Amino acid sequence: MSAAQATLNRQVRLARRPAGLPKPEDWSFTSEPVREPGAGAVLVKTLALSLDPAMRGWMNEGRSYIEPVGLGEVMRAGGIGRVAASRNPHFREGDLVSAMVGVQEYALIEEAQMRKAGLFAIDPRAGTVAQWLNVLGMPGMTAYFGLLEVGQPQQGETVVVSGAAGAVGQTVGQLARIKGCRVVGIAGGPAKCEWVVKELGFDACIDYKAGTVRAGLKEHCPQGVDVYFDNVGGEILDDVLAKLARRARVVICGAISQYNNTGAYQGPKNYMSLLVNRARMEGMVVFDYADRFPQAVAELAGYLRDGRMRSREDVVQGLENFPDALLKLFRGENFGKLVLQVAEG
Amino acid sequence: MSAAQATLNRQVRLARRPAGLPKPEDWSFTSEPVREPGAGAVLVKTLALSLDPAMRGWMNEGRSYIEPVGLGEVMRAGGIGRVAASRNPHFREGDLVSAMVGVQEYALIEEAQMRKAGLFAIDPRAGTVAQWLNVLGMPGMTAYFGLLEVGQPQQGETVVVSGAAGAVGQTVGQLARIKGCRVVGIAGGPAKCEWVVKELGFDACIDYKAGTVRAGLKEHCPQGVDVYFDNVGGEILDDVLAKLARRARVVICGAISQYNNTGAYQGPKNYMSLLVNRARMEGMVVFDYADRFPQAVAELAGYLRDGRMRSREDVVQGLENFPDALLKLFRGENFGKLVLQVAEG
Repeated sequence: MSAAQATLNRQVRLARRPAGLPKPEDWSFTSEPVREPGAGAVLVKTLALSLDPAMRGWMNEGRSYIEPVGLGEVMRAGGIGRVAASRNPHFREGDLVSAMVGVQEYALIEEAQMRKAGLFAIDPRAGTVAQWLNVLGMPGMTAYFGLLEVGQPQQGETVVVSGAAGAVGQTVGQLARIKGCRVVGIAGGPAKCEWVVKELGFDACIDYKAGTVRAGLKEHCPQGVDVYFDNVGGEILDDVLAKLARRARVVICGAISQYNNTGAYQGPKNYMSLLVNRARMEGMVVFDYADRFPQAVAELAGYLRDGRMRSREDVVQGLENFPDALLKLFRGENFGKLVLQVAEG
Repeated sequence: MSAAQATLNRQVRLARRPAGLPKPEDWSFTSEPVREPGAGAVLVKTLALSLDPAMRGWMNEGRSYIEPVGLGEVMRAGGIGRVAASRNPHFREGDLVSAMVGVQEYALIEEAQMRKAGLFAIDPRAGTVAQWLNVLGMPGMTAYFGLLEVGQPQQGETVVVSGAAGAVGQTVGQLARIKGCRVVGIAGGPAKCEWVVKELGFDACIDYKAGTVRAGLKEHCPQGVDVYFDNVGGEILDDVLAKLARRARVVICGAISQYNNTGAYQGPKNYMSLLVNRARMEGMVVFDYADRFPQAVAELAGYLRDGRMRSREDVVQGLENFPDALLKLFRGENFGKLVLQVAEG
């Protein structure tokens, strides 16, 4: 690993807290020499990064479910990498690993930080690097535990998921189908809707850009919505609330339509539908289920293997394109899980 | 019962669907001769009526958890009455009963309607007529099942209840105290707050009219709010959402601050606190628990008897005062359960 001494680690840091959509000036690009790991540490070379709507929240000041990224710090990001050097008995050079590596080419992870960084070795036979950031990664875990633990779908029920062509949504819908539910997606544009129905096997998909969410729900959910997995918030949340079935469960996973608001979030005006329908709305944070990730990964990898589940990733190349790539999420331009490839595997 | 033939039954009917607060013109006063009950029916003489925030919702068109009152129909209301004549073996003349009698002096309840009307004999030894409309009636049932079944408070947790001096709120808070919780009320004005703390034994009460809800929650709920029992909606709901503890439960029982809106309800802008805190918000309708009312009545009557629970009713006299009396609710003028006394026992 002496060669690494000469290698530069390029990094993207949070320079300023954004107001609204992140702007180029909110980021700074730095580089520093790659350091050799000390006793117990590993050096991970980043291969691919997960770009997630939640990142927008991490850029804001103030307590949330996770501390904000500090100004001047390397932007937080989960990713897949290869161990470039190890002084830890659990990891060998060449191992593929998943960890919160940050938006940088190399991450030096001290032994004491490994738990917090979520460092673990991944099995390349279970899925591709991109799939390990998608179905087998945080989006997949979020879909799995959010749908099954919080949503508790029963066979024959109607499950609606927004952001249906996105990372979490694609797995939520396919999983709900596997569990015997009728599944209706909500996505932006005919191409995504067609993919969700034809390739992923959803029963229907409503194009919110066509402004037909209410009509679509009426058509495709004649018995009402038993489980709504919400990734978007805003008007769509209100539209679905208006169509809840008795004892419905609304899983609050995200609110991408609101993350770049400079003012307050738009609250769900139809929340009294929870009363009328004896329904509940519940939030979830995927990290709470970390102990059970291996079980979920095994189940989902099985579905990928036997063809019952498909995945789609939208791969952007190059660390330097991080700021632009992130914006694709908030413009709804990504089609499938958005991945930033930083290096070849 | 031949005397009843000559007796007039005065009634208050819904003449018009209100926009905003109900106006005098939204009601009509009628009277018609009292009819004798046919086979299986009972004639109930109304003694006292329950005036409830939910009545406002029943006056609107459109499906809710219960069908709306039709235009020209006698206004729906629960009440306590005395059986004036009976041709039903389960009820004798002179029995005290609870039922949806409507805003009228006499209710003729056919055998086929008894279940829907919720007709049952009450035990005057368990509580006064007013208490049977309060702690032992729908507000008490709502408090009991909403708090215990939906809120699921655990010993040592912090329970916050809005409308604390109202019918449901007073029982929610006292019951939570009995179950070993720390209880913080939210009520309007110093007199109600003082009563809630000094007479009912709440740990604290925040006067929302003083505009100190956020500060009060910060002071009185240093560990956050584990259970919030919401009767009011609006800004107060948002303020409490901002103070939720991990895995908090928000019981949506009502939204009196919003019932007279002519536009949409104000949605809770801070609903993403549900995500951050892995919390849930759930609606409840008391009628769902009808099978278990006797058990709850027995428990609550026991607390009344042994002095662990107190009740307060705000009694207005005279059927003709129904329209005005109802407005007291929406102006927050009632202090305790609002009861309209129609006749002497």
